[in-house]
Amino acid sequence: MSGETFRALFYGLGSDGTVGANKESIKIIGENKDHYAQGYFVYDSKKAGAVTVSHLRFGPKPIRAPYLLAQAHFVGCHQPLFLERFDVAEKLLPGGLLLVNSSHGPDTVWETLPEETQRSLQEKRARLFVIDAGRVARESGMGGRINTVMQVCFFSVSGVLPHAEAIAAIKDSIRKSYGKKGEEIVQMNLAAVDNTLAHLYEVKIPERVGSRTKIRQPVLASAPDSVRTVLGEIIAGRGDRLPVSALPCDGTFPTSTARWEKRNLAAEIPVWDPDVCIQCGKCVFVCPHAVIRSKVYEESALADAPATFHSHDARHPDWKGQKYTLQVAPEDCTGCGICVDVCPARNKSEARLKAINMRPQPPLRDAERENRDFFLTIPELDRRKLPLQSVRQIQVAEPLFEFSGACAGCGETPYLKLLTQLFGDRLLIANATGCSSIYGGNLPTTPWAANKQGRGPAWSNSLFEDNAEFGLGFRVSLDKQREFAAESIEALSSQVGEKLARRILEKQQRDEADIFEQHEAVAELKAKLESVNSEDARRLLAVADALVRKSVWIIGGDGWAYDIGFGGLDHVLASGRNVKVLVLDTEVYSNTGGQCSKATPRAAVAKFSAGGKPTLKKDLGLIAMTYGNVYVASVAMGAKDEHTLKALLEAEAYDGPALIIAYSHCIAHGINMTTAMQNQKAAVYSGQWLLYRYNPERARRGENPLQLDSQAPRMKVQEYLSLENRFKMLTKSKPEQAKEFFDQAQCDAENRWQFYQYLAARDFKKPTNIQKQTHPNDNGQNLKPKVEV
Amino acid sequence: MSGETFRALFYGLGSDGTVGANKESIKIIGENKDHYAQGYFVYDSKKAGAVTVSHLRFGPKPIRAPYLLAQAHFVGCHQPLFLERFDVAEKLLPGGLLLVNSSHGPDTVWETLPEETQRSLQEKRARLFVIDAGRVARESGMGGRINTVMQVCFFSVSGVLPHAEAIAAIKDSIRKSYGKKGEEIVQMNLAAVDNTLAHLYEVKIPERVGSRTKIRQPVLASAPDSVRTVLGEIIAGRGDRLPVSALPCDGTFPTSTARWEKRNLAAEIPVWDPDVCIQCGKCVFVCPHAVIRSKVYEESALADAPATFHSHDARHPDWKGQKYTLQVAPEDCTGCGICVDVCPARNKSEARLKAINMRPQPPLRDAERENRDFFLTIPELDRRKLPLQSVRQIQVAEPLFEFSGACAGCGETPYLKLLTQLFGDRLLIANATGCSSIYGGNLPTTPWAANKQGRGPAWSNSLFEDNAEFGLGFRVSLDKQREFAAESIEALSSQVGEKLARRILEKQQRDEADIFEQHEAVAELKAKLESVNSEDARRLLAVADALVRKSVWIIGGDGWAYDIGFGGLDHVLASGRNVKVLVLDTEVYSNTGGQCSKATPRAAVAKFSAGGKPTLKKDLGLIAMTYGNVYVASVAMGAKDEHTLKALLEAEAYDGPALIIAYSHCIAHGINMTTAMQNQKAAVYSGQWLLYRYNPERARRGENPLQLDSQAPRMKVQEYLSLENRFKMLTKSKPEQAKEFFDQAQCDAENRWQFYQYLAARDFKKPTNIQKQTHPNDNGQNLKPKVEV
Repeated sequence: MSGETFRALFYGLGSDGTVGANKESIKIIGENKDHYAQGYFVYDSKKAGAVTVSHLRFGPKPIRAPYLLAQAHFVGCHQPLFLERFDVAEKLLPGGLLLVNSSHGPDTVWETLPEETQRSLQEKRARLFVIDAGRVARESGMGGRINTVMQVCFFSVSGVLPHAEAIAAIKDSIRKSYGKKGEEIVQMNLAAVDNTLAHLYEVKIPERVGSRTKIRQPVLASAPDSVRTVLGEIIAGRGDRLPVSALPCDGTFPTSTARWEKRNLAAEIPVWDPDVCIQCGKCVFVCPHAVIRSKVYEESALADAPATFHSHDARHPDWKGQKYTLQVAPEDCTGCGICVDVCPARNKSEARLKAINMRPQPPLRDAERENRDFFLTIPELDRRKLPLQSVRQIQVAEPLFEFSGACAGCGETPYLKLLTQLFGDRLLIANATGCSSIYGGNLPTTPWAANKQGRGPAWSNSLFEDNAEFGLGFRVSLDKQREFAAESIEALSSQVGEKLARRILEKQQRDEADIFEQHEAVAELKAKLESVNSEDARRLLAVADALVRKSVWIIGGDGWAYDIGFGGLDHVLASGRNVKVLVLDTEVYSNTGGQCSKATPRAAVAKFSAGGKPTLKKDLGLIAMTYGNVYVASVAMGAKDEHTLKALLEAEAYDGPALIIAYSHCIAHGINMTTAMQNQKAAVYSGQWLLYRYNPERARRGENPLQLDSQAPRMKVQEYLSLENRFKMLTKSKPEQAKEFFDQAQCDAENRWQFYQYLAARDFKKPTNIQKQTHPNDNGQNLKPKVEV
Repeated sequence: MSGETFRALFYGLGSDGTVGANKESIKIIGENKDHYAQGYFVYDSKKAGAVTVSHLRFGPKPIRAPYLLAQAHFVGCHQPLFLERFDVAEKLLPGGLLLVNSSHGPDTVWETLPEETQRSLQEKRARLFVIDAGRVARESGMGGRINTVMQVCFFSVSGVLPHAEAIAAIKDSIRKSYGKKGEEIVQMNLAAVDNTLAHLYEVKIPERVGSRTKIRQPVLASAPDSVRTVLGEIIAGRGDRLPVSALPCDGTFPTSTARWEKRNLAAEIPVWDPDVCIQCGKCVFVCPHAVIRSKVYEESALADAPATFHSHDARHPDWKGQKYTLQVAPEDCTGCGICVDVCPARNKSEARLKAINMRPQPPLRDAERENRDFFLTIPELDRRKLPLQSVRQIQVAEPLFEFSGACAGCGETPYLKLLTQLFGDRLLIANATGCSSIYGGNLPTTPWAANKQGRGPAWSNSLFEDNAEFGLGFRVSLDKQREFAAESIEALSSQVGEKLARRILEKQQRDEADIFEQHEAVAELKAKLESVNSEDARRLLAVADALVRKSVWIIGGDGWAYDIGFGGLDHVLASGRNVKVLVLDTEVYSNTGGQCSKATPRAAVAKFSAGGKPTLKKDLGLIAMTYGNVYVASVAMGAKDEHTLKALLEAEAYDGPALIIAYSHCIAHGINMTTAMQNQKAAVYSGQWLLYRYNPERARRGENPLQLDSQAPRMKVQEYLSLENRFKMLTKSKPEQAKEFFDQAQCDAENRWQFYQYLAARDFKKPTNIQKQTHPNDNGQNLKPKVEV
């Protein structure tokens, strides 16, 4: 290393290990007695596809630069997809070094670089190195973990330490970092070090600019103006340059914006095989990013279909004579592969294939983009005619939660997407801080979307500690507005017309058809009011939409529901008001990096329970059931998708508070996310997670309100625990403790099963007068002002 | 009424109805078209014996005086006891009117007034009126409610309205105010109006000053200097005149101060009949103000006893050959009479008498004061020899919670007093805001006290919303201090002496004798450290007291525990740390005036549930039991005093978190406070309140942790509900609703009983390895630094 401070910049993908490896590099260099080292790490809060930029400085002199790098001697681009999005060579110093990870070899990589990057390299007379890090990692048995490979390349190319010394230090640090995770992982990483050097190439930079591409714009050119000029600039990292006047004055941002940001994260995307497909809809149901959709339509709609657009006769008897298409959004897919894992259909001619199969994205991108665009032009089925009672039916309902920034394979988002398929046009969502608030509404874009009528979820985020109360406020305001609107209609009935007034006031809004008719009637009302020039008419106009049934959902993770927001949640549930609560239970604080919550099960290793959580998972469902008037369900989509669907429908139909606790697998569990739905199954099969529904309506009909929907455990808990690293690692780090906890977890499951069986079977003493609804509220079934209790 | 604004000042006792009656008077006068009216009300937060001063203005001109009265045309003194405490005539205008409520007639009342008041009356040439309002109220069937009587006197004496008009208006307002409470109450009040005028007398003011008394000092002359000069001044209402320098610079006030403020609230006090008494200790146990105490002592202690001091041979076999005295603190008693109600002994010669009986206080005051002073000089029994296992034994333990400002007959304070009798020398109390924080530590005085060794509870109050966390902080700090102290002793063992070091570090602090020895050893350590001149020694000295076992209690009402502080409480219980929680469950927000909480039972009328609470009482105990490692007990002192005692002892002995939910009757229940312990019995007999203890230690021994200590319900819930006005009033206001709710409450009780029977009988699957304590903590049983989990 010369006397100068060496500056290095790394573009990594969130959670790809780049930051961790860079921190190790700092240690390796900094522990060398003559070296100073500094690192700044710039993160995005997006869960997948987010750029993390590491700014590193090394040198023999003290470093006094408390700011990010503007220029660098070295730039590492750890993910090929960034090559399309930025000019990664832009910040290189003259004569600097660019290392790219690409599946293209030294002979072909140049052509794949965008024109801007080619020019930068030429102008700066830089040197270019390439490695197919994905391949090296896979061949070393490390799956997609490329961080060690890229770290070796950095030391090899940069020369910040003598080569042999650097390699020895890396190997040493691997033993330290991964020792806890087992010898197998250590050996893989050591092998990767050796394999790396054999696959690292310098690329000769030609004189010509031979690119076929230019840097991709941050959002589609077809996006609305406000998306392009405001959100697009924020995505491109130029948000600081926006004038205040460009931003919405009340802080309200439009929805349906994530769809303009084509992230192209997936190396592989699912491809449909219409002949094998049984059209069950399971892949659509589980897709965490709402990337797979299906439609049923008249054959005539295919008139202008692109050549590669696939279609098949619809198989469901209800849809006889119509056509069916399963379509992927190729540029929005994150490539998790869950869809393929849950597909129950087998290709008889080739057993390893299913009705959908993963294929490399780049060759498919253009054609599938065109197919997807065409797919969107096919009309949606009329919701009034859609029973929405089964997964097979729900697959054709339009999702209004598209392309969130959640992790590939996220276990939370399928529940949210389903919610929007069921009630999207009337949802109001109060979202606690956590993963769901980040992928749900973190600027610049939001996946929450609107349908063609412009109706969709209204969404806002509040604090960890008050989100239930925040959502209750939605309900209270809506009820008040509706009450006021109903009174106003009565008062204005001569202007509005007695018949229309009665039609609106007496409308029972039980199902989609009812709600549709109420929408129509309210539209008529609003049209009439427009022509009435009075203060009263204007006031009614302002709140008339509250006459249509709304659905208030309070959403958050277990950190919110079990811990920090629990006091408020408990109070809101006890209030008897008509709010629905969805707990996305990952059993850990996922967003902040895996801290133990009261939802964490016994034996799980998490931050603050490094020795395994010694206590039982809190039984939030039981607590809610003790109130007697709260609808409660415990669901796990991967174990029983129809059960999840039924619970959501019942919860929304119930005229009072509801709580749904949804098992959500998570990267924090230390599992293969592609097969995560199998983990959900195992959790239920072993009795670690119960499926049930507690419906107070049943008690009113004289039945036991609790239905236990799981079957008796048919698998040992230990077998399930061994599937997930959060438990399994304890058998390595504290084998004795693990044995004890695993034993106990087995007893816990058996005791839980016995207890819930009792609850579901017990005979209640019931009052002779069945109590009428004492806290009347508002599934919109009665618009008359309520008598105060 | 002349053209001038008429000013009137009223001294009432908190909750005696003075303020309510004055508000009615304002309405009566203000509704007269030509009159303006204004009222300011100055409250004290003390629950009993607190002065409320009403400042009223009336007149034909608009009133523009946004401040309190400095002088008045009329002063009403509604409680005789204030005559001793203030010069009630001080603020009279010349020629003003003073109305006093006194049991002395027009011929004798003059002599009972203190010299200062006599002089004021003479100097101002005022007129004096007297009524025995207590007698009129009693004779009209209204018990102690004097407000109507005094209101009639005010109108009669003041002449603010023509007499006939005023009386008609009062009667009208009675019908309005009390209509809801039933015709019986209306009639009583109407009768009281008529009876009043016959008993109201004007007193001729003599020329001479013939008083035998002067205004009483706010605190005893024998009180410590700081109490007299600071707290005494605050009590006297002169706190604003204290210089800042007179106040403690860190906000820490001394304990044991309520004892200096002799309030003389009771018209009648209990008098002991040694011959009838069976020495069971029940009266001592229940006394809410720690006013009744008993001691067992050697006969020799009686040498200097006053003539009227009573004594009897001790009856308990353990105390054979010793003497026994039951002594009342006459000037601290609030006269509730609960002691008499619970006394199980009958005077065979006169059936209506028991072993204690209520007698007028004034004639007894001087002698009993002397007896009480003597009683205090008798030595306390040695706690090391006191098993503290039964109510009979506990009665001789010194309480360190004396003479709180709680309501007469309070259902909460006996639990707190008991706590101090059991663990007073080592208590740290985190007190949530509510009644208990007001009577517990509201300036100027506190009932929390210290024993002769200067040891007693340390007490502080925190917010409604964070008190559990506040108390957890006590524990964490103590544990850290103890850990540090233990490490320091190890490090300093050569200076401290290896033997002493080992004695302290290895001491098992299981019982009173152990703790006493540890105190001695730590005293020895501190003495040694005094002579070591090193920083380490001084540091150890500062934390050495943490080596003696401490008991951290988190205390609050149901508003805190079930509602506002519940989120934190839940988290603290789940933490596994060694903190104890005592919930004083009055089933309503008592301190703020009776708002419904989640602890309020179904059918109870409270603020925010005026139509009867429609939902079940929250089962806080069950919620805590779901964690499995929390000691939980549900107790009701009035139903089973030994059970309460056992639960407190077990909770403190348990090496982990504990929750005790203590049924606390309350004036807000609309009950006769004298017989309130009978209400507790009825609540338990009907199954409305269960008694149980859940001890995780039992699970470790392979037993079911839950012991159901109630017997099967033997009384209809409705029968219990009819005893308390909070329920009963619904049968008047909403008879149909009441029927439905009462039915349901019966079912609730039966279902609850069935469910808890199942819980107490169920067979657990237990792990083969019994788990060791995984969150080790600190009943002081092991002082070694703990291994981090």
